[in-house]
Amino acid sequence: MKVIALAGGVGGAKLANGLAQLLQPEDFSVIVNTGDDFVYSGLFISPDLDTVSYTLAGINDPKNGWGIAGDTHTVLDSLKKIGHPVWFTLGDRDLATHIERTRLISSGLLLSEVTRILTKRLGVAHQIIPMTDQSVLTQVNTEKNGTLAFQEYFVKYQYQPVVTHITFSGIEDARLPETGVEKLEQADLVVFCPSNPFVSIDPILAVQGVREILHHKTVIAVSPLIGGKTIKGPAAKMMQELGYQPNSFTIANYYKDLIQGILIDSRDVEEEEAIRQCGIISLATDILIPDVIAQKRLAQEVIKFGKNLLLRNR
Amino acid sequence: MKVIALAGGVGGAKLANGLAQLLQPEDFSVIVNTGDDFVYSGLFISPDLDTVSYTLAGINDPKNGWGIAGDTHTVLDSLKKIGHPVWFTLGDRDLATHIERTRLISSGLLLSEVTRILTKRLGVAHQIIPMTDQSVLTQVNTEKNGTLAFQEYFVKYQYQPVVTHITFSGIEDARLPETGVEKLEQADLVVFCPSNPFVSIDPILAVQGVREILHHKTVIAVSPLIGGKTIKGPAAKMMQELGYQPNSFTIANYYKDLIQGILIDSRDVEEEEAIRQCGIISLATDILIPDVIAQKRLAQEVIKFGKNLLLRNR
Repeated sequence: MKVIALAGGVGGAKLANGLAQLLQPEDFSVIVNTGDDFVYSGLFISPDLDTVSYTLAGINDPKNGWGIAGDTHTVLDSLKKIGHPVWFTLGDRDLATHIERTRLISSGLLLSEVTRILTKRLGVAHQIIPMTDQSVLTQVNTEKNGTLAFQEYFVKYQYQPVVTHITFSGIEDARLPETGVEKLEQADLVVFCPSNPFVSIDPILAVQGVREILHHKTVIAVSPLIGGKTIKGPAAKMMQELGYQPNSFTIANYYKDLIQGILIDSRDVEEEEAIRQCGIISLATDILIPDVIAQKRLAQEVIKFGKNLLLRNR
Repeated sequence: MKVIALAGGVGGAKLANGLAQLLQPEDFSVIVNTGDDFVYSGLFISPDLDTVSYTLAGINDPKNGWGIAGDTHTVLDSLKKIGHPVWFTLGDRDLATHIERTRLISSGLLLSEVTRILTKRLGVAHQIIPMTDQSVLTQVNTEKNGTLAFQEYFVKYQYQPVVTHITFSGIEDARLPETGVEKLEQADLVVFCPSNPFVSIDPILAVQGVREILHHKTVIAVSPLIGGKTIKGPAAKMMQELGYQPNSFTIANYYKDLIQGILIDSRDVEEEEAIRQCGIISLATDILIPDVIAQKRLAQEVIKFGKNLLLRNR
């Protein structure tokens, strides 16, 4: 069975890592959101690609959720000393990734090619594919702070501003990289990772042609919510601000024209009836995946659940 | 007496530092070559501005001649690990300067404004002025390796290729920053530091308007050669390749339409007669300035020599 995952940052990286533990590189790849990418002081930074790459390389910092475990902060300390307004943490090894990515991009390579080179050097066997080689900017439109680039909203403003709507600037010119099209078309099962639907999965779905391919596929989602709350990040807060109930039913309903199944947490078992009424099959299980063992266990359930749906769809 | 110096990298920075020890910030400033500036992996790097700034801030690495004393190399080590082709040494604190300069340039400030901010933060009281806010690229045209950007020639090729001629790409649009014009016009004495005439002083002289102002000024040079050799860098080698005798007479003769006086080394006293025949007054002294004490001593001689020439010119 060939599986492809759609993922954003930390939550998505965790499930992707579980799937990568179980499936061969030719049978599993990940398409990653790049709407959060930004250029900072000339450096091309791709937060979700880094999080997924570091996690699959086994060098991610499990405490922070981003960056590299045990990284030092020599340059950051120097920046502070010379009066640089530091609004995000920047590790030295992480900085090396940004410098090398920028060098490769400057040399004329596409982001998908650069990502392939960087992940290979990190020892990642599975393919990590950016959702597009074109520049797409996720913009969070807020009540009082105007339009913010996602990283600004997320890191600088600590996702406190109230969100009115989300836009993906540049999306009309964005195309899925060729390898992404191939892998997606070959896939038997597509998995929406437990990532933020509005700012992690939606940008990928908004890339031209992606929805069309997905309509012919068996697709399952893993809810990013447990008991109406997210483990990390602003998904639940955003849902409320955008007029949704923050629960797993809302997630299922939000994806209903694309998914056939959803994994939700056992604690949310009472939502199964409403989900069924949307025509979606649910599986309630333990979806909290703090460590690699849990990631692998959930990935096993995802694969088993997917296989059952595939048999059913035949 | 108001003094302004024209300087390139290490040698220029040393004499500028000596002069800064003796003269008040309102009486001394430096115009620095920016023809060696380059963008590397998105980062705006200005080698001579950094060398002069670090030297005047007292944090320069006296062993290497560039970079910051006691700097660490964490990011460089990480870059090597992920396969980045490292052809120049990059310290962590030095990298912070590049990141902060790039951030300020990206925010829309001019290089001269950025330099003012950065030097102020380093505690430098004297003004360090880039020769221009526009982009000028010193290109070293070589016999066998084609046209090289200066840093490529200097660092990557270790100045081994034979030079045929030097060009300053973009120079026709370059203007001296407003503060540079003011300081230069106010100056009683202009000092050409012991820098490479072809790639450090010439780019500054090639900026529109600079020669015109200098024609009305008392100008002295300090030879970058001792016994036909340079302390550091390719000046002597370049001179030979460009068809000049590598000695202090050549330096005097090269600048003869601009300077009235030159300081040469006592070891080159036999060149004084030929220099005099060019209509230039020479002073033979110890021009080797390895430490701050020597820098200050030579600066004292420069000022005294300049004062004598000024009295003479009245």
